[in-house]
Amino acid sequence: MEEQTQQEAASPEVQKRVQDSFDRQGLMGHLGARITHIGPGRVHIELPARPEVTQQHGYFHAGATSAIADSAGGYAGYTLFPEDSDVLTVEYKINLLAPAVGDYLEAIGTVLKSGRTLTVCRLEVYGVEGDQRTLVANGQQTLIRVNRPAA
Amino acid sequence: MEEQTQQEAASPEVQKRVQDSFDRQGLMGHLGARITHIGPGRVHIELPARPEVTQQHGYFHAGATSAIADSAGGYAGYTLFPEDSDVLTVEYKINLLAPAVGDYLEAIGTVLKSGRTLTVCRLEVYGVEGDQRTLVANGQQTLIRVNRPAA
Amino acid sequence: MEEQTQQEAASPEVQKRVQDSFDRQGLMGHLGARITHIGPGRVHIELPARPEVTQQHGYFHAGATSAIADSAGGYAGYTLFPEDSDVLTVEYKINLLAPAVGDYLEAIGTVLKSGRTLTVCRLEVYGVEGDQRTLVANGQQTLIRVNRPAA
Amino acid sequence: MEEQTQQEAASPEVQKRVQDSFDRQGLMGHLGARITHIGPGRVHIELPARPEVTQQHGYFHAGATSAIADSAGGYAGYTLFPEDSDVLTVEYKINLLAPAVGDYLEAIGTVLKSGRTLTVCRLEVYGVEGDQRTLVANGQQTLIRVNRPAA
Repeated sequence: MEEQTQQEAASPEVQKRVQDSFDRQGLMGHLGARITHIGPGRVHIELPARPEVTQQHGYFHAGATSAIADSAGGYAGYTLFPEDSDVLTVEYKINLLAPAVGDYLEAIGTVLKSGRTLTVCRLEVYGVEGDQRTLVANGQQTLIRVNRPAA
Repeated sequence: MEEQTQQEAASPEVQKRVQDSFDRQGLMGHLGARITHIGPGRVHIELPARPEVTQQHGYFHAGATSAIADSAGGYAGYTLFPEDSDVLTVEYKINLLAPAVGDYLEAIGTVLKSGRTLTVCRLEVYGVEGDQRTLVANGQQTLIRVNRPAA
Repeated sequence: MEEQTQQEAASPEVQKRVQDSFDRQGLMGHLGARITHIGPGRVHIELPARPEVTQQHGYFHAGATSAIADSAGGYAGYTLFPEDSDVLTVEYKINLLAPAVGDYLEAIGTVLKSGRTLTVCRLEVYGVEGDQRTLVANGQQTLIRVNRPAA
Repeated sequence: MEEQTQQEAASPEVQKRVQDSFDRQGLMGHLGARITHIGPGRVHIELPARPEVTQQHGYFHAGATSAIADSAGGYAGYTLFPEDSDVLTVEYKINLLAPAVGDYLEAIGTVLKSGRTLTVCRLEVYGVEGDQRTLVANGQQTLIRVNRPAA
């Protein structure tokens, strides 16, 4: 799934549905994160560096890194769901591979397997500084689709 | 380890070391989190409810839940480390068991196994509303101890 | 849940249902594992030491340790399911805390949260040598309940 | 790392070191698993279907699936270690994406990040039936390098 969807954009309806939901997440706005790509089964979220998202040494906090990874995966799954459904994170696991530094972080959520009830995503977070991209975190996430009217 | 340390406080030196490091974490202050207990191998962090930490339905965002869980575990491990060392999260896994609602969240990090290089912690997060405490997330975390002068 | 169920046995019907399913698992028999406790939300499985379950240094192989942990958790969840349902492992995460040595391993699966669709279990594996019990692995598992006639 | 190493074989010395260690794993022989590829940072292990590796419905048991995934990842890391070192699994997490069926399973361990102390691998398991390959499990693993004389 990964390769085909890398550049492709989701339909305008899906893009609007994802963006609207994202805009209702108080945390994402509070951190300063923004969605930069919404493709079928793939979503990118960027988080610029600033003191409000750091840990004790001035790097991005693992909690900030994980928050955008979790949201990128959740919305990647959501792009493939029917309109009257919603997405919840069941669980995720993330390895912090390198100090999370850079001008900004880019989290990429990619659907590995989309089932009727459960969806599994790969989570990747890159630290981007000028031309350089470093994989700083890698994870795996399980989502559940729930039927309910859009909030 | 859990039972003995539940009520016990760490030494004043350790408490100060943990609190100072926590105070340098821009993210924790930005979210509004505070440390409420520092025991040997056990740390509690609370996060009051407010719009800045929500997901799209007004619950606590999984990213906020995870951020305080990760910090609670990291500092729980740190209480057992020698003074000239530091702690990094290698990885963690967290299950989101129930909608994270309440007046505040309480994250509890507890050391399960403290080794020379690696430490493993249990992570629990409760939603607290008046008298009621609900386990909303449960996880497991691996930490690494690194030798370096205190920053 | 843990404390109350530690000693309690499941109903004879549930015990039979679990034991019958276990007996159909070719792998458990091939490894030499056996169920030693079936309580509501809690199952124990033991695996005696023998060369067929070792890794390169003669310890229990992580794969054997995980296999009995996964089965103990799966059956712990299964004890709480209605009769016409079945259990599948969605995912699990396990930390190998210490070399898995001893006369036998004891895996304990305990339900942390039992939902309509998903169940989350704690997995613990002890190495037992004479009087000594050492926690050698600790994990967390997500199960899904599926409706189907018993096979 | 993945792309470059897919077809490449490791040096004869490394191949021998990995194969010798694998041959000492009682569990791998007992299950009937064999190594089919040893590249730098990438190892494949196959497990033929037979009743001794099944769960209660006749599919491959999650414990068998995980065991070969864990070994494939561990040896993938080991190919990049210096000669006088050894590898231990710190932890892993695996999602079981689909019923594990087929003539045989193929587990692929691939190094994502190789550090001085810790190595992180991706774990994939495919069910292979004739021409068809289905991803049945996907995981992530943390390894630690320990210095000791080869056993």
